[in-house]
Amino acid sequence: MESSAIFRLSSPPPSFLTTKPNNTKTLSQTPWKHRTSLPTQVHCNKMFVPGFGEASPEAKAAKNLHQFFTYVAVKIVAAQLQSYNPEAYKDLMDFLDKHSLDDGDKFCADLMRESSEHKSLALRILEVRSAYCKNDFEWDNLKRVAVEMVNESNTKVMRDYVQETSH
Amino acid sequence: MESSAIFRLSSPPPSFLTTKPNNTKTLSQTPWKHRTSLPTQVHCNKMFVPGFGEASPEAKAAKNLHQFFTYVAVKIVAAQLQSYNPEAYKDLMDFLDKHSLDDGDKFCADLMRESSEHKSLALRILEVRSAYCKNDFEWDNLKRVAVEMVNESNTKVMRDYVQETSH
Repeated sequence: MESSAIFRLSSPPPSFLTTKPNNTKTLSQTPWKHRTSLPTQVHCNKMFVPGFGEASPEAKAAKNLHQFFTYVAVKIVAAQLQSYNPEAYKDLMDFLDKHSLDDGDKFCADLMRESSEHKSLALRILEVRSAYCKNDFEWDNLKRVAVEMVNESNTKVMRDYVQETSH
Repeated sequence: MESSAIFRLSSPPPSFLTTKPNNTKTLSQTPWKHRTSLPTQVHCNKMFVPGFGEASPEAKAAKNLHQFFTYVAVKIVAAQLQSYNPEAYKDLMDFLDKHSLDDGDKFCADLMRESSEHKSLALRILEVRSAYCKNDFEWDNLKRVAVEMVNESNTKVMRDYVQETSH
């Protein structure tokens, strides 16, 4: 309400505050105070998801996946080393015992600073998590499994309730 | 080994067990017992990911997403109720205070058994999480953001290390 009062004082309104009309000439001839204001309607069929601040739900989920990819990369590198480089495997395992993988980036940063041998391990983990995320991880499969999981869980929750209450 | 012994008795081998040769005529003229057996090689360029037991990394990631979808569904339903049904909103908030959302399915099952009002809330959460997962969640965006995140994090980890050691 306050902003519309300000606009009434200055005619025409600032261009960045108005939606671009289809017929500029006709509208510019009409005085501002006589214009019937058309609310800008955003047509979106999606449900409103509150409370994610600046990050989208997708970004939040991606952040979780990011940690997961580091965990997978460490597992892949460890399995590769185990067979042909037992020393490096032992180094990695010892480091894993002392450092948490909850923050994957911190883990890699710390590993990089441990020694020159550890540094090459860290670089390999970074490389593997990038390759895994881009090429190996089956994104289509993830969607399929997740949708199936939701369907099955919904059915199970409802079936259990019905079975429990119908006896 | 047992199966190859069986094949030796009956010549030619069953068609569904042989790979289709490029030149059928030439191979069919060769007797089965003289054929040098070619081992079936599975060509897979993907890295071996150990230690996920029966579940694939995709299934593990989907399980995490499943919990996330329940969390998002509860947030969506709460936001919808807040504006037009304050009583149901209060019921949901009170229930949330007392019950953990760590296990989404258990949360829904418990909510369903609280009262008939709570039951309709639970059914709505189940419906919303299914619709959100199938229609609203932007799967392509998830992949894009996750790949970007890995790229940026890798660059950051390496840049920080270089900056720290070059001074």
